[in-house]
Amino acid sequence: MKRVAVIGASGYTGAELLRLLANHSNVEVTVATSREYADKPISMVHPHLRGIYNMKFTKFDIDKSTSLADVFFLAVPHGASLNITPKLLEVGVTVIDLSADFRLKDPKSYEEWYSYNHPYPDLLRKSVYGMPEIHREELKGAKLVAVPGCNATATILASLPIVRKFYFDKLISDVKVASSEGGMKPTEGSHHPERENAIRPYDAEGHRHSAEVEQELSLIAKRKVIVSIIPHAVSSVRGVLASIHLWINDDLNELDILRYIAETYRGEPFIRIVRGGIHPYPDPKYVIGSNFADIGFSMEKRAKRLTIFAAIDNMMKGASGQAIQAFNITQGYDEREGLKYAPLRPG
Amino acid sequence: MKRVAVIGASGYTGAELLRLLANHSNVEVTVATSREYADKPISMVHPHLRGIYNMKFTKFDIDKSTSLADVFFLAVPHGASLNITPKLLEVGVTVIDLSADFRLKDPKSYEEWYSYNHPYPDLLRKSVYGMPEIHREELKGAKLVAVPGCNATATILASLPIVRKFYFDKLISDVKVASSEGGMKPTEGSHHPERENAIRPYDAEGHRHSAEVEQELSLIAKRKVIVSIIPHAVSSVRGVLASIHLWINDDLNELDILRYIAETYRGEPFIRIVRGGIHPYPDPKYVIGSNFADIGFSMEKRAKRLTIFAAIDNMMKGASGQAIQAFNITQGYDEREGLKYAPLRPG
Amino acid sequence: MKRVAVIGASGYTGAELLRLLANHSNVEVTVATSREYADKPISMVHPHLRGIYNMKFTKFDIDKSTSLADVFFLAVPHGASLNITPKLLEVGVTVIDLSADFRLKDPKSYEEWYSYNHPYPDLLRKSVYGMPEIHREELKGAKLVAVPGCNATATILASLPIVRKFYFDKLISDVKVASSEGGMKPTEGSHHPERENAIRPYDAEGHRHSAEVEQELSLIAKRKVIVSIIPHAVSSVRGVLASIHLWINDDLNELDILRYIAETYRGEPFIRIVRGGIHPYPDPKYVIGSNFADIGFSMEKRAKRLTIFAAIDNMMKGASGQAIQAFNITQGYDEREGLKYAPLRPG
Amino acid sequence: MKRVAVIGASGYTGAELLRLLANHSNVEVTVATSREYADKPISMVHPHLRGIYNMKFTKFDIDKSTSLADVFFLAVPHGASLNITPKLLEVGVTVIDLSADFRLKDPKSYEEWYSYNHPYPDLLRKSVYGMPEIHREELKGAKLVAVPGCNATATILASLPIVRKFYFDKLISDVKVASSEGGMKPTEGSHHPERENAIRPYDAEGHRHSAEVEQELSLIAKRKVIVSIIPHAVSSVRGVLASIHLWINDDLNELDILRYIAETYRGEPFIRIVRGGIHPYPDPKYVIGSNFADIGFSMEKRAKRLTIFAAIDNMMKGASGQAIQAFNITQGYDEREGLKYAPLRPG
Repeated sequence: MKRVAVIGASGYTGAELLRLLANHSNVEVTVATSREYADKPISMVHPHLRGIYNMKFTKFDIDKSTSLADVFFLAVPHGASLNITPKLLEVGVTVIDLSADFRLKDPKSYEEWYSYNHPYPDLLRKSVYGMPEIHREELKGAKLVAVPGCNATATILASLPIVRKFYFDKLISDVKVASSEGGMKPTEGSHHPERENAIRPYDAEGHRHSAEVEQELSLIAKRKVIVSIIPHAVSSVRGVLASIHLWINDDLNELDILRYIAETYRGEPFIRIVRGGIHPYPDPKYVIGSNFADIGFSMEKRAKRLTIFAAIDNMMKGASGQAIQAFNITQGYDEREGLKYAPLRPG
Repeated sequence: MKRVAVIGASGYTGAELLRLLANHSNVEVTVATSREYADKPISMVHPHLRGIYNMKFTKFDIDKSTSLADVFFLAVPHGASLNITPKLLEVGVTVIDLSADFRLKDPKSYEEWYSYNHPYPDLLRKSVYGMPEIHREELKGAKLVAVPGCNATATILASLPIVRKFYFDKLISDVKVASSEGGMKPTEGSHHPERENAIRPYDAEGHRHSAEVEQELSLIAKRKVIVSIIPHAVSSVRGVLASIHLWINDDLNELDILRYIAETYRGEPFIRIVRGGIHPYPDPKYVIGSNFADIGFSMEKRAKRLTIFAAIDNMMKGASGQAIQAFNITQGYDEREGLKYAPLRPG
Repeated sequence: MKRVAVIGASGYTGAELLRLLANHSNVEVTVATSREYADKPISMVHPHLRGIYNMKFTKFDIDKSTSLADVFFLAVPHGASLNITPKLLEVGVTVIDLSADFRLKDPKSYEEWYSYNHPYPDLLRKSVYGMPEIHREELKGAKLVAVPGCNATATILASLPIVRKFYFDKLISDVKVASSEGGMKPTEGSHHPERENAIRPYDAEGHRHSAEVEQELSLIAKRKVIVSIIPHAVSSVRGVLASIHLWINDDLNELDILRYIAETYRGEPFIRIVRGGIHPYPDPKYVIGSNFADIGFSMEKRAKRLTIFAAIDNMMKGASGQAIQAFNITQGYDEREGLKYAPLRPG
Repeated sequence: MKRVAVIGASGYTGAELLRLLANHSNVEVTVATSREYADKPISMVHPHLRGIYNMKFTKFDIDKSTSLADVFFLAVPHGASLNITPKLLEVGVTVIDLSADFRLKDPKSYEEWYSYNHPYPDLLRKSVYGMPEIHREELKGAKLVAVPGCNATATILASLPIVRKFYFDKLISDVKVASSEGGMKPTEGSHHPERENAIRPYDAEGHRHSAEVEQELSLIAKRKVIVSIIPHAVSSVRGVLASIHLWINDDLNELDILRYIAETYRGEPFIRIVRGGIHPYPDPKYVIGSNFADIGFSMEKRAKRLTIFAAIDNMMKGASGQAIQAFNITQGYDEREGLKYAPLRPG
């Protein structure tokens, strides 16, 4: 039984961690922090957790919280983890960081993509990018996990099978994104009358997740892979679909692609391959509330065009679910513990 | 460990039963029937259940299915249960019926509300209306449970506290209803371009659920209670909110109401009382995916008007969740088994 | 040809005025003010108006704007009109005020409902409540029009036929409201992930619009009428449905009600009576983008319950459309000028 | 004043034609046909048109209808126009055909894409593809106009500027599509609980609109252009966004692209260029209810990737609006007549 702290628990990813950890057999949540809502009951901010948590939020205090918890999930904004993580690691607790602060191996990338000089290059070397489908072995016993971003997760999972097998050095990822991806803070773009019915490109001239996607795909491909992500805000509440579009040559056929996907994800507990039938392509609609990633593709022989799709719930496999999956591996637990949810239908 | 059959498993309530039963510790689903999809994989019709069920649907066969299962959940249209239930009970299995066929005690009510002569008045006497908050004791060991309707559940749960305490003999229930309530069959009214953005009254001149609501509330009140339900289709996917509007006199104050609600639902595992704070009233939004019913109220002293609200997820407490809660009681299991879901946020 | 100013043109009701006035034959928009966006192009804030307005927003300046415009539409927050209107009237221009500042005749009501002492009781006497169905005659030539609120409009239009005819002294208005009603400023409640799928009661213990509704209905009824409004936020973008619930006696039948509605609204250009057929009740869905108010009802004889429904587009008949209708009457124009829009389907 | 018939007026594109034609200064609608609803009032099927049309639907009768109308808008399914159009043209009336039956110049294309042998190759030669931005001159006086498909319109309008200027011989069009595009007939995919929150690829292995897009772009480019369209159903009600993704070389910069777009669409009444500001990319949200097409782009220099976006309302510029624009040109009317709608906001 691990004592767990959720830092930044008043936002959406924090709330999702609380929701999932409440049913995790090996976990007791002992700390939930919030700057804004310290001393208020969790259920005041998260009405869905009424009757599930009777705790109050506290202010983050390094000494107190490390005396109460062994594992820290950080659901804090980018930049905030930099101030906390080094201290936590010094005390010896495990850190599962949902921010971007320790995802990139190359400190220079932080200058390029996040406009700051990373003060802890050594920690970047130690941190493990928390995608079990790529880094399962390194996650075992890891003390610092950098949980992937949501658009990055969908893009990587769709790209992996072909990048491993083929010489594709440039990928376009046309991503469709639900509104919960933007977090809990209201903005002009998230205002319901503006967001509902929108099909709105955004961050379309250099999306930050490109950095981690290129890092991971280049690692797998053993060559530099360029990925251009074009996100589009659509009016779902949960869900991400990445559509990776490729021009192919005549040699490649559908069975090849299917085989590459199957080989890449054999035995993966949360990857489901979608092919044929009434619902022939992945749709985030059918993973809502679960940690599944559905992978499928369409090939247009005539035009020699291939599209690989990955569908995830951005709150789950795209954030808090993947964080818990990675945590389970670090602790040697069953990878599926606390994540055995079937998706909602309709959701 | 009970072997369980889901009859009519290709619809929404059937799918929701499958989703929930997959994680129920005391249950193994051995039969899932579908007339339309017999011999097809469950995951073909229910893409969200890919990787969770590898079974195929079968045609319903009384002999075969009773040899494979001890408990039968009927997720069939009204009328269809009449043909199945008596035979199942003869064999000795337990029936949890989600249709309306055994909800009303008085056979004449079926003539009035469902336009047929009920052929089994004796079974009506034996069946237990499956709302644990009213009939927990009778549910223990029951062989035939009639699971309440969704609008009925919301209306009864909101009305119970005041009907028990006060002489209200007429209630108005203004109900707001999500689209999944209509089931899985497409209709002109459920067509997305028509249903989205709709705020549409329907069945507004004698909603059938009135019959079961009046039966139960009159039983509790020990006098005839008249309830008029006016449902409105709104564009949510899951959720029901019942708003029970009442004119009150000066004697009644907010603390009274709060006390009546608290007394009525003391110890109930799935009732949550909502009062004050940032989210002062129930909203089905915050029970989605869970079996909770949130109960709250607003009182306008100036106008001497009281409204009691009940919010449920129509697929859960309004159908399949409540069915499993009642089933748990019939079998002596922990009432919460298979239902320990926190709601999704955002959902 | 009137020169028209829109004050507060960067919000939703301002934008809707600009949209409608662009096609009004007797109008030229010469001034559009915005504190926040002064000197920015209208199309920067209102991308839908690209290519329609090439003007920039200006700061409000009483001297300059009254030299440029003859009629002022005020789309400003409650309270702000108090500072502007008296000066405008002094200069002699016509004021069409969409705020609440001049809706109530009794200055004390402002203390009670809006928590301020009204400084211009004389102007309250002069202002005309801008609902043509009640005050058409007084609107002719009026210099100060107080445009009704959206929930008030739906509630009054539904109540009028029976209040005129019957001795109903207490009314419940269960109102369902789209998200655009809250205006253009993002809030926690309007955040898309929170508002979508919500069915959320709000302002449910004394909604401010009660004051104007009671004023107008009492005037018509020639007795004190109490109205309790219970608004519910649902996830549409545009639209309001008011459901007025009443207990009736045996004497009243459906034809009576239909006749009262027909008599009340005979000749009204924007009232449509809905009765029978495939779509038997009003639904705001079918008035979106238009100035229509659809009126209908359901009667449940068994329970002696009557509900009258009114459906409007909150941006049109609930705000800017009604403002222009009232303006047309003040100027002696065809009442339908600038408002000849058929609703969108699907919308 | 033209007397106009709408054939197939009970569907969505028919309804949209009726809505627009009601306010067209040069048009009187004299015939509205419907097989299913002949002899029923238009307002029974189209509740939004209550009070606007008092006519009834009639069965289509060639003799009667050609005696009553000079211009025929065909809002009929693909294939049905083949039976009607030749007869109508023989009588001498003008046909504005919204189906695909006369869009393709090469009869063989119908075999390939629509699986039938086209019986009227001569009419294919005479018909004009009704996109004014390409065929304005040929439209003048045309007797047979084939109105483009919705996804085709968005794809062509986005592609035109670069295809004219550059040697791009292969294009990917990732299209996001609202639910009204599927028409008025309910299907399993359009069922609200299934369609809401969906991000669902469909027709992704050879979308039929590819044929007309390739025809038109090849014509402009004077070389064979291959276009692969991958549509994704999202949960909006109206709207299409096409995202055309391209790999570019270093020579090309943003000003070039902006200039090509500006040159291509100079003077076009319904094309708006979107660039910079708060809303830097096209979003169908801001054209809803109007005939505008908003064109914009994003360029990621680092990755040498260009995306051109086109946003339209699928019912307007994607169908009935464009039909009326083309009709206006055939008759020599002001091209904007009947189409002077500003988009709704919020819509």
